[in-house]
Amino acid sequence: MRWTKTFIPTLREAPSDAEIASHKLLLRAGLIRKLTGGVYTFLPLGLRALRKVEKIIREEMDRAGALEVLMPTMQPIDIWQQSGRYETAAEVLFKVRDRAKKEWLLSPTAEEVITTVAASELNSYRQMPINFYQVSIKFRDEIRPRYGLMRAKEFIMKDAYSFDVNDEAAMGSYKKMYDAYKRIFDRCGLKNFPVEADTGVIGGNFSHEFMVPAETGENEVVFCEGCGYAANVEKATSGIPKTAARDVGAPVEKFPTPGIVTIEALAKAGVPANRQIKTLIYIADSKPILISIRGDDQLNEAKLAGVIGTTIFRPAEPQEIFDALGAHPGSLGAVGVKNYSVFVDERLRGANDMTTGANEDGVHYRSVSIERDIQVTKWADLRTVNAGEPCAKCGKSLKIRRAIEVGHVFILGTKYSEKLGASYLAEDGSRKACVMGCYGIGVTRTLQAVIEQSNDKDGIVWPVSVAPFTVCITPLSIAPDGAVMKLAEKMYADLMALGVDVIIDDRDERPGVKFKDSELVGFPIRIGIGEKSLAKGEVEIKPRAGAMLAAKPEEAVEKVLALIKECTPRATES
Amino acid sequence: MRWTKTFIPTLREAPSDAEIASHKLLLRAGLIRKLTGGVYTFLPLGLRALRKVEKIIREEMDRAGALEVLMPTMQPIDIWQQSGRYETAAEVLFKVRDRAKKEWLLSPTAEEVITTVAASELNSYRQMPINFYQVSIKFRDEIRPRYGLMRAKEFIMKDAYSFDVNDEAAMGSYKKMYDAYKRIFDRCGLKNFPVEADTGVIGGNFSHEFMVPAETGENEVVFCEGCGYAANVEKATSGIPKTAARDVGAPVEKFPTPGIVTIEALAKAGVPANRQIKTLIYIADSKPILISIRGDDQLNEAKLAGVIGTTIFRPAEPQEIFDALGAHPGSLGAVGVKNYSVFVDERLRGANDMTTGANEDGVHYRSVSIERDIQVTKWADLRTVNAGEPCAKCGKSLKIRRAIEVGHVFILGTKYSEKLGASYLAEDGSRKACVMGCYGIGVTRTLQAVIEQSNDKDGIVWPVSVAPFTVCITPLSIAPDGAVMKLAEKMYADLMALGVDVIIDDRDERPGVKFKDSELVGFPIRIGIGEKSLAKGEVEIKPRAGAMLAAKPEEAVEKVLALIKECTPRATES
Repeated sequence: MRWTKTFIPTLREAPSDAEIASHKLLLRAGLIRKLTGGVYTFLPLGLRALRKVEKIIREEMDRAGALEVLMPTMQPIDIWQQSGRYETAAEVLFKVRDRAKKEWLLSPTAEEVITTVAASELNSYRQMPINFYQVSIKFRDEIRPRYGLMRAKEFIMKDAYSFDVNDEAAMGSYKKMYDAYKRIFDRCGLKNFPVEADTGVIGGNFSHEFMVPAETGENEVVFCEGCGYAANVEKATSGIPKTAARDVGAPVEKFPTPGIVTIEALAKAGVPANRQIKTLIYIADSKPILISIRGDDQLNEAKLAGVIGTTIFRPAEPQEIFDALGAHPGSLGAVGVKNYSVFVDERLRGANDMTTGANEDGVHYRSVSIERDIQVTKWADLRTVNAGEPCAKCGKSLKIRRAIEVGHVFILGTKYSEKLGASYLAEDGSRKACVMGCYGIGVTRTLQAVIEQSNDKDGIVWPVSVAPFTVCITPLSIAPDGAVMKLAEKMYADLMALGVDVIIDDRDERPGVKFKDSELVGFPIRIGIGEKSLAKGEVEIKPRAGAMLAAKPEEAVEKVLALIKECTPRATES
Repeated sequence: MRWTKTFIPTLREAPSDAEIASHKLLLRAGLIRKLTGGVYTFLPLGLRALRKVEKIIREEMDRAGALEVLMPTMQPIDIWQQSGRYETAAEVLFKVRDRAKKEWLLSPTAEEVITTVAASELNSYRQMPINFYQVSIKFRDEIRPRYGLMRAKEFIMKDAYSFDVNDEAAMGSYKKMYDAYKRIFDRCGLKNFPVEADTGVIGGNFSHEFMVPAETGENEVVFCEGCGYAANVEKATSGIPKTAARDVGAPVEKFPTPGIVTIEALAKAGVPANRQIKTLIYIADSKPILISIRGDDQLNEAKLAGVIGTTIFRPAEPQEIFDALGAHPGSLGAVGVKNYSVFVDERLRGANDMTTGANEDGVHYRSVSIERDIQVTKWADLRTVNAGEPCAKCGKSLKIRRAIEVGHVFILGTKYSEKLGASYLAEDGSRKACVMGCYGIGVTRTLQAVIEQSNDKDGIVWPVSVAPFTVCITPLSIAPDGAVMKLAEKMYADLMALGVDVIIDDRDERPGVKFKDSELVGFPIRIGIGEKSLAKGEVEIKPRAGAMLAAKPEEAVEKVLALIKECTPRATES
């Protein structure tokens, strides 16, 4: 491609609403333009890079035996009602009405559609394992779209759905996708690592997220350098000790705590936070529920969702709390509560000599022995892990880092296949529900993650595999009959003939402008051709991430090919 | 690809709601599945064929110098309000509301977005000509989605938008696209022809549609075998004579016509249809307008839209007519009408001694001389051409045939650039509006048009260029150690190594089933390998569209390559 024949509107400054490096560089390098909040146009260079990410994904999905399909963006609501996601995912669903006032949804993922296809097309165990994938536009009604492509209203996602005859076979499909994902992110040049993940609304019981470490990432990952344990903070557990046992001792006793409505205030009044029970009231399924955790712990809402089986819940309003328990926040507790479910964090199991609100403003109970005094509906892991806690596997101190989630693999089980009727005739003649897995990659997000991870003060530092062009030839003068341009044109033709993705900067611009632009856009290799160096019988090969090296013109192409080979990210074999 | 590793759910019968051959075959050959009315999933084979169409389109767009981009599907309404299409295209726009109750549109095309991009990115005449294209999902709220992919709610479209410094340069961009379109449809193996077209709501003043002749097409094309004139019926004109002149004669005179409310009835009563004026009342811009055409002509609403400058109009209701003119349909006329615009068809220019309604039930006027008795707001071509009329260019009798519109090229002029501020600094220092063109191809429709045009009683007959696989190897027995399967595997490997898109039918099925399926799916070349023919030292090469030929196994690959080359559709040079 000739620079003058494409469209690369580089910018000196990024618009002020671009907050993170990758977002700024996407704009400055002329890869995307914002239409409005959360909605972007890909310009020619951005689209080229995006297509390279897509190509790597397709190659690895095909290699893993998955079959590419393309499902509709507009989806009828009935199948979403059947799956239950019409309610559970309601918050993020964009809804459309047609001229007949019929309602449709814009697909955020396609479990319902593919399961509907499977329900009519898969009939026999002989047809499985089978895995369908698509690369397509998806939609999410984000509360706060931000960071460019990281969290947009409209984005490109690769989603895949496997169908198997049983759990064991499904794990085989899952493993294939897990391996394919590792290869995909490796080949995109991303430092990445899988972590155990929460399954959220989508259900199921086995899940990993693929994370790219980044200070600006929206996810927190808990990891152990000792044994390699890694999990999303929503899912992570630790080996932190349970609350120290004491004698059960005296029965509960009320004591006045006027004006004391926080854990901290009560701690100052002499009850350490780790001897307090914090009681939170949520509304789930239109009814109040109580959650009890230790005073120094934080509730993990993702874990709560898993325990109660829905994400449709919210903290109760003060009036709702008062109506339910007769007291205001700060004086709440589960002692004696019989009309509502009480979920208690495992760390409190066996705890006694605890203090908690008495459901009477300005009054607390002390000497609470949980198993004696509280009617526990369910014990569960409900707390959020903190850095420094011991690893549950090896005891080493856990760390937390921020990361960008670029992929997610799930075992869904039969959640969708049962609800949408995707069953098959088994070898033994019985009819069984297909066991499903689902696998997503944020394609546009992956592209941006590459930039977020690989840039410097001058611009993007593209890995060869996803760079919009691999090589940029920069003739310092463009006189068509000059030796410089003649050599540049020859190398341009030679590299193209060899299948190299090459751009020639044929603009009538000063060398400084050309160099700055090629560094900003971040082409992996630049070949500088100028009169001075040519007089010395040399051209300059500058890897974006390495030191300049001189080459004889007749050897330059070969050196560039070797550099490309050397610099192309490869999948590490697992 | 191995047949057993992909997913080709062929059907003996098409679902009953599939009406036309191509729709039936898309379903029967396992290329697509219906999710619900107007919304389809592409299965692996359908997607392969679609990708081949897309690839041809991209190659030709790139060759013509257009730059691929990707614009958002969800578009903010403000730019649509600025362009005016929020109203004029309202009928086909799907509207979405987000959680903040903000309204968005699902893109049916992207004039507004690309012009917004151009407004901020194009500043100088030096940046033009430039042409941006995308291949993306589009949406149209169709009254009646039908014929599968032909008229769907959601479809894939290639849209391109050119920006030029003036009309002449814009015509150059237009010509490049016109030529690229011809090449694209030729290379897809489609018999196709361009016709002059109406520009509809989108505005502008130069336009061609690319048509594929088909009995089931939704368009009517007027064409002349004499001079090659061809036009969409919405746009077509003929050389039909104007109404025969007579003496102006007597002043208008009322006469009673009780119970006569149709052209036919009045003709029976002695006034030939060609001496009657038919008066139609429409509501446009909330006001009644009158349209006068000859009694034996039909109003062409597309022409009317062009004349009045909007498509937002409708026939008036009887009560509205009565309120406006004081009479009911059947007795209407424009004589003496002063309060409303009167649009009169050119064929009536100079006509006299005509009869028309007197705006008094049961009464007509005779001896009407139009230019004397009717206050004409505007003369215009408003009638629909009929087969058999003389060609305006050469006089030969015009014909009409049905066709499928697969592409459309337009000159838009400055309609969008003025409204959305896409201007540039001209060489003379003045600021001017960019002159735009826009160019669309219905990608999914093109795919189906190929099938509609190329099929027989056994199934699809794919052109090599867009077939999901070019060659199908059909071993009649699949015993892995048998000579048949060994040869089949060798040829499969050899053809793949040569870059041929090949599928091997490795199913454990009877030969009849395999042959029927390969004919239904329509692979261009089948290589049949069976024990009997192999014993004779032969394999059978069967072009889908030609006669079987025998080949020695060692020569088969070469023969197949020659056949592929011979059968690949090429662009005819214009």
